Amino acid sequence: MAVVGVMRIFVFFLTFYISLYCANSAATDIELDAKAQFTHRIDSLNLLLYTFLLILTVLTIWLFKHRRFRFLHETGLAVIYGLIVGALIRYAGSKTPVLHMSVTPEKDSKYNLSLPPDTLWLRFPNRGSNPPLPNKTYAYAFREEIVDIEDNEMDLKATFDPEIFFNIILPPIIFHAGYSLKRKYFFRNLGAILTYALIGTTISSFVVGALMYGFIHQMPNLKGSFTFLDTLYFGALISSTDPLTILAIFNDLHVDVNLYALVFGESVLNDAVAIVLSGSIQNYGERYQSGTGGFETQAFFRALGDFFGIFTLSLLIGALMGCITAILTKFTHVRDFPLLESALFVLMSYSTFLIAEASELTGVVAVLFCGICQAHYTYNNLSADSRSRTKKLFELLNFLAENFIFSYIGVSMFTFPKHHFDPGFIFAGFFCAMLGRAVNIYPLSFLLNLGRKPKIPLNFQHMLFFAGLRGAMSFALAIRNTVSDARQAMLTTTSLIVIVTVIVQGGATMQLLTWFKIPVGVEEEVEMLPYAGVRSEMAEPSRESGGGSRLNDKAWLARIWADFDVKYMKPFLTHARPTLLETLPVCCNPIARILTTTEQMTQDNRSRSQLDSDSDLCIEENELSYGDQRRTSVQRVRTP
Amino acid sequence: MAVVGVMRIFVFFLTFYISLYCANSAATDIELDAKAQFTHRIDSLNLLLYTFLLILTVLTIWLFKHRRFRFLHETGLAVIYGLIVGALIRYAGSKTPVLHMSVTPEKDSKYNLSLPPDTLWLRFPNRGSNPPLPNKTYAYAFREEIVDIEDNEMDLKATFDPEIFFNIILPPIIFHAGYSLKRKYFFRNLGAILTYALIGTTISSFVVGALMYGFIHQMPNLKGSFTFLDTLYFGALISSTDPLTILAIFNDLHVDVNLYALVFGESVLNDAVAIVLSGSIQNYGERYQSGTGGFETQAFFRALGDFFGIFTLSLLIGALMGCITAILTKFTHVRDFPLLESALFVLMSYSTFLIAEASELTGVVAVLFCGICQAHYTYNNLSADSRSRTKKLFELLNFLAENFIFSYIGVSMFTFPKHHFDPGFIFAGFFCAMLGRAVNIYPLSFLLNLGRKPKIPLNFQHMLFFAGLRGAMSFALAIRNTVSDARQAMLTTTSLIVIVTVIVQGGATMQLLTWFKIPVGVEEEVEMLPYAGVRSEMAEPSRESGGGSRLNDKAWLARIWADFDVKYMKPFLTHARPTLLETLPVCCNPIARILTTTEQMTQDNRSRSQLDSDSDLCIEENELSYGDQRRTSVQRVRTP
Repeated sequence: MAVVGVMRIFVFFLTFYISLYCANSAATDIELDAKAQFTHRIDSLNLLLYTFLLILTVLTIWLFKHRRFRFLHETGLAVIYGLIVGALIRYAGSKTPVLHMSVTPEKDSKYNLSLPPDTLWLRFPNRGSNPPLPNKTYAYAFREEIVDIEDNEMDLKATFDPEIFFNIILPPIIFHAGYSLKRKYFFRNLGAILTYALIGTTISSFVVGALMYGFIHQMPNLKGSFTFLDTLYFGALISSTDPLTILAIFNDLHVDVNLYALVFGESVLNDAVAIVLSGSIQNYGERYQSGTGGFETQAFFRALGDFFGIFTLSLLIGALMGCITAILTKFTHVRDFPLLESALFVLMSYSTFLIAEASELTGVVAVLFCGICQAHYTYNNLSADSRSRTKKLFELLNFLAENFIFSYIGVSMFTFPKHHFDPGFIFAGFFCAMLGRAVNIYPLSFLLNLGRKPKIPLNFQHMLFFAGLRGAMSFALAIRNTVSDARQAMLTTTSLIVIVTVIVQGGATMQLLTWFKIPVGVEEEVEMLPYAGVRSEMAEPSRESGGGSRLNDKAWLARIWADFDVKYMKPFLTHARPTLLETLPVCCNPIARILTTTEQMTQDNRSRSQLDSDSDLCIEENELSYGDQRRTSVQRVRTP
Repeated sequence: MAVVGVMRIFVFFLTFYISLYCANSAATDIELDAKAQFTHRIDSLNLLLYTFLLILTVLTIWLFKHRRFRFLHETGLAVIYGLIVGALIRYAGSKTPVLHMSVTPEKDSKYNLSLPPDTLWLRFPNRGSNPPLPNKTYAYAFREEIVDIEDNEMDLKATFDPEIFFNIILPPIIFHAGYSLKRKYFFRNLGAILTYALIGTTISSFVVGALMYGFIHQMPNLKGSFTFLDTLYFGALISSTDPLTILAIFNDLHVDVNLYALVFGESVLNDAVAIVLSGSIQNYGERYQSGTGGFETQAFFRALGDFFGIFTLSLLIGALMGCITAILTKFTHVRDFPLLESALFVLMSYSTFLIAEASELTGVVAVLFCGICQAHYTYNNLSADSRSRTKKLFELLNFLAENFIFSYIGVSMFTFPKHHFDPGFIFAGFFCAMLGRAVNIYPLSFLLNLGRKPKIPLNFQHMLFFAGLRGAMSFALAIRNTVSDARQAMLTTTSLIVIVTVIVQGGATMQLLTWFKIPVGVEEEVEMLPYAGVRSEMAEPSRESGGGSRLNDKAWLARIWADFDVKYMKPFLTHARPTLLETLPVCCNPIARILTTTEQMTQDNRSRSQLDSDSDLCIEENELSYGDQRRTSVQRVRTP
């Protein structure tokens, strides 16, 4: 009811203003001003629409949470409200008329490049017409290439520039994922997460790409418009997962933290992998088409190099910027002014995204790893005020951005002018997305279980498979380019897959947890024992080893890194003990002294560790070789 | 040094990418993609530039604060860094080439409206040229009318769409001003603040407008391009003040809170007045030009009606949305989920801005009064988490937005393509701005002192006069429309006035405080006595009355409002005592019962009042008639 009421207000507003401005018409200047004002008002109404949708979502989801109704997550609700309002706009809203005109270059134009000009200056010839044409020059900016003139109505009602998703909506979501990552369990399961995210996503992309290509060759109406690269691009974008709904339920019910870490960690990283992969595919396509790449195989290897190069460089930029922020907050006393400190934190994090984008790398990947570094190092140096401020700020931004994107997915299903519904493609898309998820999880879990000490039980594998909801990243990649027919069909299918998985799979999570007998209500301490209390069908021998296997359940990669981290990185970048004076060889003492702050030397180790996020450390302190030595040194400091 | 380093990186990046993309050229599609990527990268670099400027500003200002160096506020610093970087870009940066083309309508075009078309479709005729022109259709969107073709290079380097200032940068600044207003002292000085802001700003606008018109008629080179309305518009935009620097120093030094309230309250409200006034002037101009307004006097009164109508309606929308948020947070238990609550708060506040803009009202005014209502009512209903989250969020947004706008003022001084430096106009502008401020403060203070009990001493008046720095609002209004020569000259002069006042007047504040013998280090409790301890030259008789005049130092308007507020508004909109059951007549008991929450009935009044913002109430509780009755009722609740 409320939605209809809101929409009525909109329609009323619209017609009111149109009539207002039709009555008031004389000279062109004023019409032009009025038109600009009208456009501004339409923009405001568009934004208002989404703001209202979000308000509705917030209020309804409160009601659901209040009544402990867990079948619908806020993102699912945002999609549903979006669909309803989108349909109302499509079938009830009045259409804003767009005036357009076809033009040709002036006769004496000397323009002879193959690129479209950036700007056009429109001048009217002086011929007698009634009313007389304006004797003015108007500037126009390039917007897009028109492929299908029949279809193109430029009716961009309630839609936004797709670049907004990449540059404004995604960065806070991804940063927050990195910033709020439970690093202890993430690093403990690093091997499995990397396997699923890097290898699994790549396999899934190629399997989906190949299968879709096969399907399309069975459909005569689509055959011509898709290349293998198109379907591969679809494979990449549909391979990124977004299990928000499921993670929210996991969190509410205290599902096993290792399962949580696997689902969350994989979804965070496969977003990064998917975006880099899709970028490499596009680059490959460009090279292949242009012919400058030479052999196809050569272009393929260059794409592979692209993929690893861009991923690694973006990761490094993100980590570097995180470390620079840590150094700035450690060695200056900016924490005496929490507002300045928070501003610095936000600015450094956002500049990471911009630097990566400006360097032809992937901002999303950079900002993810920047977030992880900020949480791991910088967070320890921040004042209490900045800690809570940044945590809460990004939590809120993440919430708003996520729900906005899901409302938009709903609304755009009806209002975006470039949807292309093809039942065959949609069916194939759903089937391949499911299969792609399966070939990621099951074979890789089998391989992982060969080497892994606490094995990933079958019920966890099923849950991982079902946690393959699609979301923001898939949609953002799909809507980025909608010029060709193929891309439009992909957008439609992706939108549908997102909507269906979020609502259906998200809604079924509670049921699935029961079916798969996933343990709930697990306290964080309890499952330090490898999957202790897992009532899985797979009775594992390792279960008996109990607390003794603590050491084994860490990936070797994580152990090496953690050792290096605790010995050198943390002492260098934060106020944590041991200091570099203790960990570096004696010859480096002068440098170590410079890099060790007075605070670090004098602080009480134990009282501090309650404040900072060291409890998130991936390795228990006493497992490290210098544990005893360090304890002694602390005592040495304290005794006098 | 750091700035030069950063710029070098930029220039390197730029040339690197240009060379990269010049080498890689073949088919148009790929060139088009590459061009889009290039534009995206330039956009990222532009944003990065401002992010770096802000990082630099934050770090430098930390250093200044650390060393207790108060001559430069962060906004002044942002302007200076902006100027330096702007000059570097202007004189050192490479120029991005913009391709443009003149076009005429196609021969068979049936377009015969006087408005410019919204979109153009560019098609190339099939004539043999080398290289062959693309056989494609490109879409172009309307951007602006070109007045001076010679000058127009469309070189929008490091500049943004002026609408961004109005729709994204200003709302959080203005909302924060309302949300962080010290309401006790604001309401206590309401009469004076309203006089300065409403009457003073209007007088200042007309005086500046008339004087500037007179000046311009002495200058033959400007005479033709300015109408009286243009100079009046200038008067309105230059009459809004932005004494950030001074307020920061007041805050640091604990300057008398009444003086603080006068300076802050006036600057907040005169922004609102200036924006509505300038809007009315534009509307008047449109009507006058178009001739539909009939007589000039008629149009004048319509403009006057516009002014009051728009101001009042915007105020009401803002207050209404604030109250709706209060009701939503009072009667739902959304505070059990602080994240949802904060999101609701932010969304409701932003939708206030959008609703006002979409209704042809002034979003800035609406969002200001929304902020005041949110602080006065909603804040009391929020959970502790949401309170700190919203406070800190808007504090941070305000900080970032303010410093961004001041950096932009600095950079755009060199990079904005439409500056028009005219020494005569600039000199006249400075003189008139000063005079306009004087005719606002001194005559009105004299009039106010006739009726006001604790008079505004002369040294406070001087300080008020010098607190007339110009800032964000003046600049945003000036850059909104830069089509004509007159408007361009205004923008240049406004930018210069902003820069000079922020740096010079801001820097001189400490000196001025000493010169004018303004008391510093005043505790909030102390100056509850009317300006007690003011070492002013004006020995006032009322000073002797001491604590006895407490009752008199409240504006009668504030008293009536406060009585109504405490009796009806607060009990209805918040969990505050007394409840409506106590304040409404007995016949309304059924309604009162519905509107009173259990929490309101059962809560411990005293423990709660420490938490909420009631201490900001404009009238001490025991001054109100039902004070005793209320205390008894509290006891009645407690005794059993």
